[in-house]
Amino acid sequence: MKAVRFSAFGQPLKVVEVVEQPDVALKPGEARVEVLATPINPSDILTLSGQYGQLPKLPAVPGNEGVGRVVEVQDSSAVKVGDIVFLPLGAGTWCTHLVAPADSLLRVPPGTDLRQAAMLFINPPTADLLLRDFIALQPGEWVIQNAANSAVGRSIITLAKQAGFKTLNVVRREELAPELTALGADAVLLDSDELPERVREVTGGAKVRLAIDAVGGESTQRLGDALARGGVVVNYGAMSGKGPRLSAAATIFKDITLRGFWLVTWTKKTPREEQGALFARLAKQVAEGALHVPVEGTFPLESIQEALTRAMEGGRAGKVLLTPNGPL
Amino acid sequence: MKAVRFSAFGQPLKVVEVVEQPDVALKPGEARVEVLATPINPSDILTLSGQYGQLPKLPAVPGNEGVGRVVEVQDSSAVKVGDIVFLPLGAGTWCTHLVAPADSLLRVPPGTDLRQAAMLFINPPTADLLLRDFIALQPGEWVIQNAANSAVGRSIITLAKQAGFKTLNVVRREELAPELTALGADAVLLDSDELPERVREVTGGAKVRLAIDAVGGESTQRLGDALARGGVVVNYGAMSGKGPRLSAAATIFKDITLRGFWLVTWTKKTPREEQGALFARLAKQVAEGALHVPVEGTFPLESIQEALTRAMEGGRAGKVLLTPNGPL
Repeated sequence: MKAVRFSAFGQPLKVVEVVEQPDVALKPGEARVEVLATPINPSDILTLSGQYGQLPKLPAVPGNEGVGRVVEVQDSSAVKVGDIVFLPLGAGTWCTHLVAPADSLLRVPPGTDLRQAAMLFINPPTADLLLRDFIALQPGEWVIQNAANSAVGRSIITLAKQAGFKTLNVVRREELAPELTALGADAVLLDSDELPERVREVTGGAKVRLAIDAVGGESTQRLGDALARGGVVVNYGAMSGKGPRLSAAATIFKDITLRGFWLVTWTKKTPREEQGALFARLAKQVAEGALHVPVEGTFPLESIQEALTRAMEGGRAGKVLLTPNGPL
Repeated sequence: MKAVRFSAFGQPLKVVEVVEQPDVALKPGEARVEVLATPINPSDILTLSGQYGQLPKLPAVPGNEGVGRVVEVQDSSAVKVGDIVFLPLGAGTWCTHLVAPADSLLRVPPGTDLRQAAMLFINPPTADLLLRDFIALQPGEWVIQNAANSAVGRSIITLAKQAGFKTLNVVRREELAPELTALGADAVLLDSDELPERVREVTGGAKVRLAIDAVGGESTQRLGDALARGGVVVNYGAMSGKGPRLSAAATIFKDITLRGFWLVTWTKKTPREEQGALFARLAKQVAEGALHVPVEGTFPLESIQEALTRAMEGGRAGKVLLTPNGPL
């Protein structure tokens, strides 16, 4: 089997290498899975750089989610050879094959787009929890987010639409507006100092209680200034390279709260049954095609450098996936 | 009577003037009070500049708290001539005399230092609420604050000590350490990039759950980075001229929350009896000398320019008070 490996934290392109590793024999209860598709997420880039909130013992294989096909099972009837399964979360998925407890493998619903299924466990739950876990929005209410064209941002547009919430979507490139509008965005706005005023125009002055921020810096501040008294900004990324900021007028005079969201914290504090219910609900949506994120391109393991370069570029059309066992 | 008056928002020194105003006749139930002492608070400076969260209709008399002596009463037994009373909160107190409903005037406990009593209604409640309303600290726990030498900061040191909390006090001038230590500070630390590390050294790695921020900008970020997972930063000022910031590592990976505090919001949402109980508890502390804030200087109304200049300077030894009816 082959795997991407890194032995030091640093510039992602410099620390990764593709290595040949021996196939280990299965123990009873284990299954071997060939990896069909696994995405490059922002958290993977931060892990390679050593900037993520939890870091693996090195050397390590990166990659946290994906889909694969069972190719061998030892003493278990939990799955059978040929089953298409979700890879276990955080398993080190950038490889041709991995070994996992057979009963930890969930089957992918038949008919599901496998590239979409490969992106189920991280971005869609993040989108769902950002939208539901901080403010109990009522149908008809507005929510504002920046980085609206990201994988999480697009899922937020879709999930908000389903729930009857109206979305204000902040982007840096005006040309994204038609695409996001087609996806269900109620408004697409440019990120600028006029944002709070534009929000008041678009909403007719309606109370906006929730802002979702993946950018940081002044962009967070503009979201905060666009919120109504008592609103909450939830920060889950720092695409600008800066931490989140608010104006003192927002925190002090308007009682705006800044919270953070990390899926890892949620998984640690949430009972497994509750987590399973969320994943099942979102898997159904992916299977039905309701949740869909564009794919920028797929790459074999050997092209990891090119794949990472693409994944780290701005202005992408979608997610970068690795397909370690051939095109999908 | 004389009063400070402003007819436009702008540079405080430029917009204030001292004017002679006619004495109005009292209506039944009203009292006339001669103002003995009234402080210049940061909120007064922000009001004159037009940057405060609520602004008066102009022209207006600035000033929000103080003490005075009743000099005339019309058809009321609530107070009598000669009584020393607290001025009503937000009454426009930078004047020689003001008129108020007699039953709105609370008597200053006998023997109280009147200059201290003049500063009772804004800073001490702010200190108390910052310490109690966001995190239920247990005796023995640490709390960290910046601007520790301010009037609010000093009250926090005193109130924390009484409650058995340990204080980490962040300052910009090292020479303040002996004075704050004498007041009860458990540690005095310089505001620098090494702050989070110094906090770990001082506390022996103990969990710090509450940070109180009056500075904003990078200083907020350093407080956030010094907190334990799940901690709360409460911002109530922006002495640096910048809004509060956090690192993305703090918000996302460490689940740090940023909240804001404004006494006006609290007074609007809190039942009057509860407010009265807090003021009474703090008035007792001021009367007993337990709560004490240094006074930088006292000025007659006519020296309002000099008083404001001093109040807006850094490196002061204490609060600036106006004494409109002569030295106190």
